[in-house]
Amino acid sequence: MLSRPHVLDDVTGTGWEALRASRPLVQCLTNGVVLNFTANVLLAIGATPAMVDIPGEAGGFAAEAAGVLVNLGMPTGEQSQAMCEAAGAAGEAGTPWVLDPVAVGSLRVRTELARQLLAMRPTVLRGNPSEIIALAGAGTGGCGVDTSDSVDDAVSSARALARLTGGVVAVSGPVDLVVDPEHEVWLENGDAMLTRITGGGCALGGVIAALAGCVENRFMATVVAVTAYNIAAELAAVRCSGPGTFVPAFLDALAGLEAQDLRERAVIR
Amino acid sequence: MLSRPHVLDDVTGTGWEALRASRPLVQCLTNGVVLNFTANVLLAIGATPAMVDIPGEAGGFAAEAAGVLVNLGMPTGEQSQAMCEAAGAAGEAGTPWVLDPVAVGSLRVRTELARQLLAMRPTVLRGNPSEIIALAGAGTGGCGVDTSDSVDDAVSSARALARLTGGVVAVSGPVDLVVDPEHEVWLENGDAMLTRITGGGCALGGVIAALAGCVENRFMATVVAVTAYNIAAELAAVRCSGPGTFVPAFLDALAGLEAQDLRERAVIR
Amino acid sequence: MLSRPHVLDDVTGTGWEALRASRPLVQCLTNGVVLNFTANVLLAIGATPAMVDIPGEAGGFAAEAAGVLVNLGMPTGEQSQAMCEAAGAAGEAGTPWVLDPVAVGSLRVRTELARQLLAMRPTVLRGNPSEIIALAGAGTGGCGVDTSDSVDDAVSSARALARLTGGVVAVSGPVDLVVDPEHEVWLENGDAMLTRITGGGCALGGVIAALAGCVENRFMATVVAVTAYNIAAELAAVRCSGPGTFVPAFLDALAGLEAQDLRERAVIR
Repeated sequence: MLSRPHVLDDVTGTGWEALRASRPLVQCLTNGVVLNFTANVLLAIGATPAMVDIPGEAGGFAAEAAGVLVNLGMPTGEQSQAMCEAAGAAGEAGTPWVLDPVAVGSLRVRTELARQLLAMRPTVLRGNPSEIIALAGAGTGGCGVDTSDSVDDAVSSARALARLTGGVVAVSGPVDLVVDPEHEVWLENGDAMLTRITGGGCALGGVIAALAGCVENRFMATVVAVTAYNIAAELAAVRCSGPGTFVPAFLDALAGLEAQDLRERAVIR
Repeated sequence: MLSRPHVLDDVTGTGWEALRASRPLVQCLTNGVVLNFTANVLLAIGATPAMVDIPGEAGGFAAEAAGVLVNLGMPTGEQSQAMCEAAGAAGEAGTPWVLDPVAVGSLRVRTELARQLLAMRPTVLRGNPSEIIALAGAGTGGCGVDTSDSVDDAVSSARALARLTGGVVAVSGPVDLVVDPEHEVWLENGDAMLTRITGGGCALGGVIAALAGCVENRFMATVVAVTAYNIAAELAAVRCSGPGTFVPAFLDALAGLEAQDLRERAVIR
Repeated sequence: MLSRPHVLDDVTGTGWEALRASRPLVQCLTNGVVLNFTANVLLAIGATPAMVDIPGEAGGFAAEAAGVLVNLGMPTGEQSQAMCEAAGAAGEAGTPWVLDPVAVGSLRVRTELARQLLAMRPTVLRGNPSEIIALAGAGTGGCGVDTSDSVDDAVSSARALARLTGGVVAVSGPVDLVVDPEHEVWLENGDAMLTRITGGGCALGGVIAALAGCVENRFMATVVAVTAYNIAAELAAVRCSGPGTFVPAFLDALAGLEAQDLRERAVIR
């Protein structure tokens, strides 16, 4: 357990500065629902998104990218093949990669694919509680992207997955949990508006991949990504009049987010 | 013909309350242009969207979902296979499903697919006049999603298709027509702004699937969906300064729409 | 070289009027990131978008469309086949078509596809400097959609490609370059905000296809498209508070853009 919240608050600011300075190239293999939003989120934070997700290109690109996102939201046959190619090449090249096992559990094809990718040891695993529980083999998963379990329910599954992969596991909820084999923090920023638009979780996977591409310590990279994303949501929530106007306000907030905002607003325990 | 508009106005409010109470799980097999907008529309009305559209998953999910949308906007080979799988499983399980035969007529692949799906008797068929006429075998269809025929031109085709499937047929236009083998109403709400953005019709298919998942009478479910959607468009149209700002305003309006708005504003004859 | 800027300014207005009068049907075979934005951009300018991109449909449609866009952003196997079908049919039917060779250079699959399509002599080729240089065989291309070369660096490559295809080549940058075998202009309108959202360049390809579908002289059609698009960006940039709110403001600006705006604001040399 980390008991140094103030140190962490400062680290989030420093991580954000590193991101802004390096403009990391982030490869996304993700689903069609969130492609546009994810690319715009990445541009807003100052990263360079590249949606390279076809076989024969995905692997070579993963070796060059700063970070890779593999999101299982709508895995066609061709994309699934590219995902394995990208994850393999990222692993070999040392490129950090994020696995988002969308809706694993009851859906056969993606659950099989998720197990295959999990064995390739993703740098960071991000999901909602039901997905994390299902992937750990402790439950049957949610329906679609919905989640019926709480983050508390998923703590032991998250720890088990972190031990299994040796990497980071982030569980999204009203309070987010980030664990790795040796650390564990709860991140209290955020706004429920993120659950009222599509892609609120999926695009976060891209932001984690971006931060992991420029902050050496991947546990901290994940903490910075989740915290920054959630603080931008807080700022946007007070400037919108519903989920429709939240989306542009959120992108504006991400684009304008400064290290100082993180240092002042981060709530980490 | 229904001659009880005031009764219907009240029923729309009751249907909307049922939707808000049940948060139906809506499976969408739809085109990439409107994936994001459709998911956000469904979240805004309080439904849970799940874009499960790959073979091996689509059928099992359709059996569990509250409603299913099958939209032929960009049918790849893999998605077409999943559509047949989903429609078959929905039919067997009694899950209501909506067919949107985008641009059928002159486009060979989707027209063949639409005929196949039509034979599986969709619960609701939604299209523009040219599509409905083409599907009834009475014309050649429009160009793309554009429509060159009026709703009046499509009345007999809509009636014929309703008799053929035993289900509901909704024809979109300045005034919308909803028919089933025994009923027929004209819905006068709406705003032309819906025709100036992409997905105005496609996302409505998802809303119909959501309502059909929680209102037993599928004719009424369709009437509620179309009316609510159109009233939200009216509310948004006065709060925007063009088609770009209409989209977020429309999502906000859907999210804020209350049964009372339907009771007060519905114009049904 | 053209040395008649004032004549050109007036021609841009006339071209815009032609577009508004003809509502051209524009077929787009493009990537999932920008599908929605491209369709909304085309609707905003008054065109009719149709995303017909599957084999067996793409060719027949290209023969009927006013213009076709082929964008290599995320070319699956099926879409690649449809692209060749569409380009072939467009060539035979005399339908103008635009090739956007997204991220060609280091990415093997699309680079091979781009060379194949280039041999089919696109009416207009649009790309960023790195893509144009890579396609001309003079460099290795950028990373993803990012560009590391300047428009100045790409001048000789653009000229070489124009001679090779006999068509128009448009290079996007802070100042845009449009060349054909006999003409060359620099277009100074625009706003950097277009580089801070995804699809800023991709959707322009659709606008060029629309203009090429209603302005006989394709060099002028391209000049009108680029200039109008960039002027709308200028108008939107002063009405937004970041990249998120820029998108709806830009669509509103395109929808409201009038020939007079082009005549007054166009800066062409």
